[in-house]
Amino acid sequence: MILLNGKPQDLIPASDRGLHYGDGVFETLAINNGKPQFWTAHMERLLDGCSRLVIPLPDVACLKAETTQVADGCERAVIKIIITRGSGGRGYRPPASPEPQRLVMHYPWPDYVVPQEGITLRQCLTPLSCNPRLAGIKHLNRLEQVMARAEWGDDLVHEGLMLDLDGNVIEGTMSNLFAVRNGVLLTPDLTRCGVAGVMRHQVLLLAHKLGITCEIVQLRAAELEGMDELFVTNSVIGIWPVSCLGEARYGEAPITQRLISALNLMMEQK
Amino acid sequence: MILLNGKPQDLIPASDRGLHYGDGVFETLAINNGKPQFWTAHMERLLDGCSRLVIPLPDVACLKAETTQVADGCERAVIKIIITRGSGGRGYRPPASPEPQRLVMHYPWPDYVVPQEGITLRQCLTPLSCNPRLAGIKHLNRLEQVMARAEWGDDLVHEGLMLDLDGNVIEGTMSNLFAVRNGVLLTPDLTRCGVAGVMRHQVLLLAHKLGITCEIVQLRAAELEGMDELFVTNSVIGIWPVSCLGEARYGEAPITQRLISALNLMMEQK
Repeated sequence: MILLNGKPQDLIPASDRGLHYGDGVFETLAINNGKPQFWTAHMERLLDGCSRLVIPLPDVACLKAETTQVADGCERAVIKIIITRGSGGRGYRPPASPEPQRLVMHYPWPDYVVPQEGITLRQCLTPLSCNPRLAGIKHLNRLEQVMARAEWGDDLVHEGLMLDLDGNVIEGTMSNLFAVRNGVLLTPDLTRCGVAGVMRHQVLLLAHKLGITCEIVQLRAAELEGMDELFVTNSVIGIWPVSCLGEARYGEAPITQRLISALNLMMEQK
Repeated sequence: MILLNGKPQDLIPASDRGLHYGDGVFETLAINNGKPQFWTAHMERLLDGCSRLVIPLPDVACLKAETTQVADGCERAVIKIIITRGSGGRGYRPPASPEPQRLVMHYPWPDYVVPQEGITLRQCLTPLSCNPRLAGIKHLNRLEQVMARAEWGDDLVHEGLMLDLDGNVIEGTMSNLFAVRNGVLLTPDLTRCGVAGVMRHQVLLLAHKLGITCEIVQLRAAELEGMDELFVTNSVIGIWPVSCLGEARYGEAPITQRLISALNLMMEQK
């Protein structure tokens, strides 16, 4: 089921700037126990994205009602919300009074098959481009992720790692990356590129509560080999430990496991 | 009038990857004297873009017929062609057997009002990000151009100049840039970012025919002040001389004028 501006509709105008330019933002959120998870955090990022792109802000209460309607009583599902600037304007020039379009879509819960000991991560060749003006937000320009994800077809590889053009580790194609070194939790700085994931933010909050030191860092790909633990996060998968990246193997992951337990507890209490 | 896969239709599926990820390419071409201009060059770039994104190639004869149908006998018009990877796949992962969608759209000829002596160009704050994997092609990830074009509302400013993050001049928001210094035609290298415009290519060919030396260069914004001539190009506007960029003024532009005359002659002969 898809709602466009609140009405069941699975088509959008061919003139929409979301299609022409990727002129919009989106959120992908989990429905668990019938309820949207981390709703407030998703809405904060969505509104931040709209503000930064100067798209009029959607009504959050209305999005909540539509999310509930589209979730349709499912215990588990994925909801995708897309806000575009709508049609109009002249070429790239945005219209003076945009009429944003609001899509709320239901997807079945994905059937990822992931080994208990952790996932296999591969390093992608497609680089992420840097642009501080767009960094952090979840805008609709996602061709780099598509190209990176198209690099492998082997289902035994679960996620791809993306670097910027300078060789800094940024994130996975659909996830954020964390590493643990000497008991300290590290995650890449996203001020120049990358998506500031809602689950990344939750993990940072959880780590803080658990008294785990966190650092936002520049990380080189070669440094990952020397890490004690690696994991990736997103709103749907939660936390996936990494067991394998290239030649590197990661075994016992006490801090990752503590975070997974804390996250599970937090989700149960919601 | 809009054709979707050959049928009149002004809506597209909300699941289209063009909307979700900007997963596709486009062309904007001029109809002059009732005929599409530089058709072959546009098709070459479109096919190159599809190849690089691993989108099955559209049938060019079919696109030609649809362009003629959508142009609808107009003497002058703008036709926009969009090819997306269609729907399907799993998140960023492209479908194994994509069913590309083909949109052909008619726009009226734009009523740009441009002074005879040349346009006013402004330097944009929004940077262009670099990604050699996407450079040159006209893909649907155009948020940077939208952000740059949103920087000014004054109709007396005709185009915005965009730099990469390192301060290299790349192109205009909707055009390519050329400069003339000591009789030599210069245009920025586009191997790391930017769109390799069809008109840029034609101008390089024309200059070659006219015996004007051309160089593809790295250009710093500060160097533009010392240029003898500046102009911008695209498929619809042709060549626009620049008379003003920041504090810099450009007067007599003999090489630009030679190129404009040669281009006009070429268009008449088509």
